[in-house]
Amino acid sequence: MTLQTDADGRLVHLLTLEGLPRPVLLALLDRAQAFADGADARGALAGTAVCTLFFEPSTRTRLSFQRASQRLGADVLGFDAATSSTTKGETATDTLRNIEAMGVRGFVVRHPGDRAVAELAAAAAPGTVLVNAGDGRHAHPTQGLLDMLTLRQAFGGDFGGRSFLIVGDLLHSRVARSDLHALRTLGAGRIRVCGPRQLLPGEDVLAGCEVFHDFDAALEGVDAVMMLRLQRERMEEGLVGSLEDYHRDYGLTAARLRRAARGAVVLHPGPMNRGVEITDEVADGPQSLVLRQVANGVAVRMAVLETLLARR
Amino acid sequence: MTLQTDADGRLVHLLTLEGLPRPVLLALLDRAQAFADGADARGALAGTAVCTLFFEPSTRTRLSFQRASQRLGADVLGFDAATSSTTKGETATDTLRNIEAMGVRGFVVRHPGDRAVAELAAAAAPGTVLVNAGDGRHAHPTQGLLDMLTLRQAFGGDFGGRSFLIVGDLLHSRVARSDLHALRTLGAGRIRVCGPRQLLPGEDVLAGCEVFHDFDAALEGVDAVMMLRLQRERMEEGLVGSLEDYHRDYGLTAARLRRAARGAVVLHPGPMNRGVEITDEVADGPQSLVLRQVANGVAVRMAVLETLLARR
Amino acid sequence: MTLQTDADGRLVHLLTLEGLPRPVLLALLDRAQAFADGADARGALAGTAVCTLFFEPSTRTRLSFQRASQRLGADVLGFDAATSSTTKGETATDTLRNIEAMGVRGFVVRHPGDRAVAELAAAAAPGTVLVNAGDGRHAHPTQGLLDMLTLRQAFGGDFGGRSFLIVGDLLHSRVARSDLHALRTLGAGRIRVCGPRQLLPGEDVLAGCEVFHDFDAALEGVDAVMMLRLQRERMEEGLVGSLEDYHRDYGLTAARLRRAARGAVVLHPGPMNRGVEITDEVADGPQSLVLRQVANGVAVRMAVLETLLARR
Repeated sequence: MTLQTDADGRLVHLLTLEGLPRPVLLALLDRAQAFADGADARGALAGTAVCTLFFEPSTRTRLSFQRASQRLGADVLGFDAATSSTTKGETATDTLRNIEAMGVRGFVVRHPGDRAVAELAAAAAPGTVLVNAGDGRHAHPTQGLLDMLTLRQAFGGDFGGRSFLIVGDLLHSRVARSDLHALRTLGAGRIRVCGPRQLLPGEDVLAGCEVFHDFDAALEGVDAVMMLRLQRERMEEGLVGSLEDYHRDYGLTAARLRRAARGAVVLHPGPMNRGVEITDEVADGPQSLVLRQVANGVAVRMAVLETLLARR
Repeated sequence: MTLQTDADGRLVHLLTLEGLPRPVLLALLDRAQAFADGADARGALAGTAVCTLFFEPSTRTRLSFQRASQRLGADVLGFDAATSSTTKGETATDTLRNIEAMGVRGFVVRHPGDRAVAELAAAAAPGTVLVNAGDGRHAHPTQGLLDMLTLRQAFGGDFGGRSFLIVGDLLHSRVARSDLHALRTLGAGRIRVCGPRQLLPGEDVLAGCEVFHDFDAALEGVDAVMMLRLQRERMEEGLVGSLEDYHRDYGLTAARLRRAARGAVVLHPGPMNRGVEITDEVADGPQSLVLRQVANGVAVRMAVLETLLARR
Repeated sequence: MTLQTDADGRLVHLLTLEGLPRPVLLALLDRAQAFADGADARGALAGTAVCTLFFEPSTRTRLSFQRASQRLGADVLGFDAATSSTTKGETATDTLRNIEAMGVRGFVVRHPGDRAVAELAAAAAPGTVLVNAGDGRHAHPTQGLLDMLTLRQAFGGDFGGRSFLIVGDLLHSRVARSDLHALRTLGAGRIRVCGPRQLLPGEDVLAGCEVFHDFDAALEGVDAVMMLRLQRERMEEGLVGSLEDYHRDYGLTAARLRRAARGAVVLHPGPMNRGVEITDEVADGPQSLVLRQVANGVAVRMAVLETLLARR
């Protein structure tokens, strides 16, 4: 029993992929695959209200959850706490409890603070369900799930015989952390990470990974290249030189991609900095699964919301 | 016949609780209680469009009306006139008439100007329905109704034998005005008000109330303590000293609350300034009905929208 | 076959009224008239998602499309790219493709750039449908259609025997361009345009029109006066003197309107600058069809969305 699973091991919130039992993770992926294949569930959440509660703006993730909610027949409410003048110094917990009191059962929460969504979940009333839509650099579990669904579609479920490479600013990336947790749970054969020394986290995060600083070396023979977005603020913070330097060292070009295994796939969580961490040729090329990831995002979020909120 | 009732005494808009006939008010509370108890009316407003037309921002009130509309099966449209760059100098009346022309019948209107919603109602086409979601310091009738519903649940309808205390900045408060109107209509036994001299309105507003400036004295034996939010701008205007001073004089603490009657209830319209007008201990304590108020808010707004908009 | 019609001449996008075949235009108007008369089509787009993708803000147009989508039973998603911080340098094409990947089939797009919506349509996946909700000064086809529907209701379809006058800043007006295209397609008898020399476009746009700079002369005997909104930025650009000057020369007053044919109708796309290009007396007078235009806007947008998106 954890904050996100009950005594019977059933999911009650989705806060992180860390420690999520393999059967739970696989069940979510199976259900998501059904939705990706077009399964209809429009009545599943009829009459149920889902609130997107965003303390940090993100139009794309919000839209994806909104579309998932619509396909399940839920009523959607949006609370953009990042721009709302009406929170007026109210705590995040008070905001949650208020919307909860309005009869809203499901919350999709994004927050700039590490573990902030788990803190809110701990304060929520019984029966209320929280989905972490990204908190600080801590976790982005639905992104991790959609990446896994995308990889599973590519590899047919055989993760043990495959090698995976995550590239870029892993230090500040909740996507990388959630991907790493899921890859380990699914028994990934080899996990490589690559990035400039100052943008890689410590052993606690990278346990079991092969660490590279040379992108060309890291790419050799890998089956999946999972690029991360370079946040512009890394330059202001002096952690990265110019965009040109970053592109030269860590930009994925078609030439570079040829070092990977034949038919290797390329993922990116978006939005892409074209010409920085990825070139147009790769982003729009036959090995790119970027749009497949977006499509899978809706399917994964449907699976998560249905699993958590549908009356059993 | 008034602007908000027709020749048969039926409600056609909800603009203020002032002068609202007791039977109309009671019918709204009865219907709201049914919704609070879970009555389903998802088909009641199917195909009917409700627009939240806010000339002053308020995410919480907007969400509450939105949830109420969803539970009635209405289509919801949002017009945030406070931030819209597209009103481009258009008058509020033109904005209303335009959305009305789009086939929208119900309008939930918030406006910074006193009586602004009544003015809009006077300009609306026949069949268009307006609900005042707060205008200036004039009225906030659905807040008044939800407060009454909450008090009625606590006291079982016996208002005559009870004493009610409203505390804080009544001068600038539309909530206080709507509460006072409703309490009088429902035959409240005693009504006390308490606040610093410079934040209390005149006799026109406070007719029949016992006026206190000493919070401890005012609390003696009351059955309900209705706290108001302190707006920070009162300090900038020099009407209030420091937050510390205000808390010392008018903050509701657990110690102070013991002066009230045994089992006295505490209300607050939210959002709360914790540590200023109310302490955590009281806000989250067993006598606090704050979250019950929020839940009742949806039920009351359902009753109002259904009463005004459902085809008879 | 064009970007907006397929090999069978069927509409696949609505990008401009220029070159739109007369039968297609008439079919849209006929279907819109049915919706204006109250035809129900709530199931037509059930399960279909429509995204309003606005790279330039416009609350009114967005609301009109939103209402149209609701009346067709579609799921609506809103992406306000103008204020979204999350596009983060992403190209409009990437934004479109991403939302498309979420399973959204219909896009209502507004963009500040001329022909920007056609460019997006060229990049869209097969099966994706775009409706131009205004791009630069190029086209605003649903405004053109609603103006035609309004005029047809007034004149009973007889455009050949009628004279039409468009007044104001035609140079910067996508409304004027779309109106001109539609009027020609529908065989308007005479088309006059009137405005200050520096606000009229060239012969390419005005082919076949009678050009006036004197408003009084232009008005003589016309059956329809189609006013344009004066954008305040024209003054900052030095293209127009004071508002008073503009009103004196090109403001439609009741006195001036008497120069037009008896029973002439007045249109304005809104929002109106009352007291500048139009007086209250005219805007709210018996010859004004301004609110009828707004009502027709929903009907026209329903017809367009249904035509493009309903499964055949």
